[in-house]
Amino acid sequence: MSTIQPTTRTKIRRKPDRAAYERAAIEAILDEGLICQVAFVADGKPYLIPTAYARDGRWLYLHGARSNRMLRAIIGGETCISVTLLDGLVLARSVLHHSMNYRSVVIFGQGEEVTDAEQKSHALRYVVEHIIPGRWADARQPSDQEFTATLVVRVPLDECSAKVRTGPAVDEEDDLRLPVWAGVIPTKQSWLPPEPDALLMQPVEVPAYAAAYSRPAKPA
Amino acid sequence: MSTIQPTTRTKIRRKPDRAAYERAAIEAILDEGLICQVAFVADGKPYLIPTAYARDGRWLYLHGARSNRMLRAIIGGETCISVTLLDGLVLARSVLHHSMNYRSVVIFGQGEEVTDAEQKSHALRYVVEHIIPGRWADARQPSDQEFTATLVVRVPLDECSAKVRTGPAVDEEDDLRLPVWAGVIPTKQSWLPPEPDALLMQPVEVPAYAAAYSRPAKPA
Repeated sequence: MSTIQPTTRTKIRRKPDRAAYERAAIEAILDEGLICQVAFVADGKPYLIPTAYARDGRWLYLHGARSNRMLRAIIGGETCISVTLLDGLVLARSVLHHSMNYRSVVIFGQGEEVTDAEQKSHALRYVVEHIIPGRWADARQPSDQEFTATLVVRVPLDECSAKVRTGPAVDEEDDLRLPVWAGVIPTKQSWLPPEPDALLMQPVEVPAYAAAYSRPAKPA
Repeated sequence: MSTIQPTTRTKIRRKPDRAAYERAAIEAILDEGLICQVAFVADGKPYLIPTAYARDGRWLYLHGARSNRMLRAIIGGETCISVTLLDGLVLARSVLHHSMNYRSVVIFGQGEEVTDAEQKSHALRYVVEHIIPGRWADARQPSDQEFTATLVVRVPLDECSAKVRTGPAVDEEDDLRLPVWAGVIPTKQSWLPPEPDALLMQPVEVPAYAAAYSRPAKPA
């Protein structure tokens, strides 16, 4: 099993028993998530932008308009990116032992622009397919103008780690006898029936990938 | 309606039609969310940590162990905090017009430690009640030792804004005639039946706040 060597930045110090450095564990979280948070520094201050992404092997792709300030900041600049999935609320017998079950990944690195046209097209396809597998081939492809106006940035998945909490509350021994309910309220992202666009000009069947949507969804 | 004056940091430049500066809109997003992302700068580099929070009036509360590096970094130090709620996937007729419906808040500011015992206790109660209203009074209260070992930090909601996307795809006029399905796949956080702790020593009924859990959940 491939493991990523933790660095001073990715080594989990708080609750180290929750750390996961196996590449497979990290990739599974990234492949299930839909939104990442991208942090960068400008004028010495922190900034944070949520955005879509996709993982392709050992790269994370981001995209946006060519003028996108966040993307421009992380090209050759340091970024920290996180993806967090919430799995449940953990009710302990004492108030300060309450917790959440979650899976999160944090990535450190520098972005680089994907300039090669073929690689850029591949990356854009991956971003769409990460979100809705099967969609890329069904919709209109980018025009030359759209393609040029879009900036694609990739960040290597070299310095990253996952943190995962699962299972029940961890209470103090003495608290176990308290007449306080304890347990977990599990949560998941639910997907509702697709709502067709009001401007559809002709009857078009809802594609299977939309009608039966769920996560994770692997690029085709 | 109370509106927050945008600053150079909070003014939405990309897609300004999605900006919301009304305090009520910002508060509603914060009150529905469960996890915030906290960015800070250390040695000139960006860091990002997901954590629980609560809003109380014009403050955002964070808490953790006294040694928590993120909390210590933002006491008197700059932070950028975001809360992002995903509402749906937007399928457009062209691949690059795909989008997501979401509501997000971004907050800039400096943290300050809550040292006053009464305010600190209030803040901790708010964090628990933000997540599970009604829970604080049911569970064991903090011991002096637990209370002392816990660090509470608040960040003012002075410099913040929301960004909200709703509604259908925005396609090019020429694309509307394409025989491509378009629409929205709505999503929501679902809450499953609570799972009682295996170590419950006596029959304790599942509290109503756990049995019928949903968001948003207002502190009692």
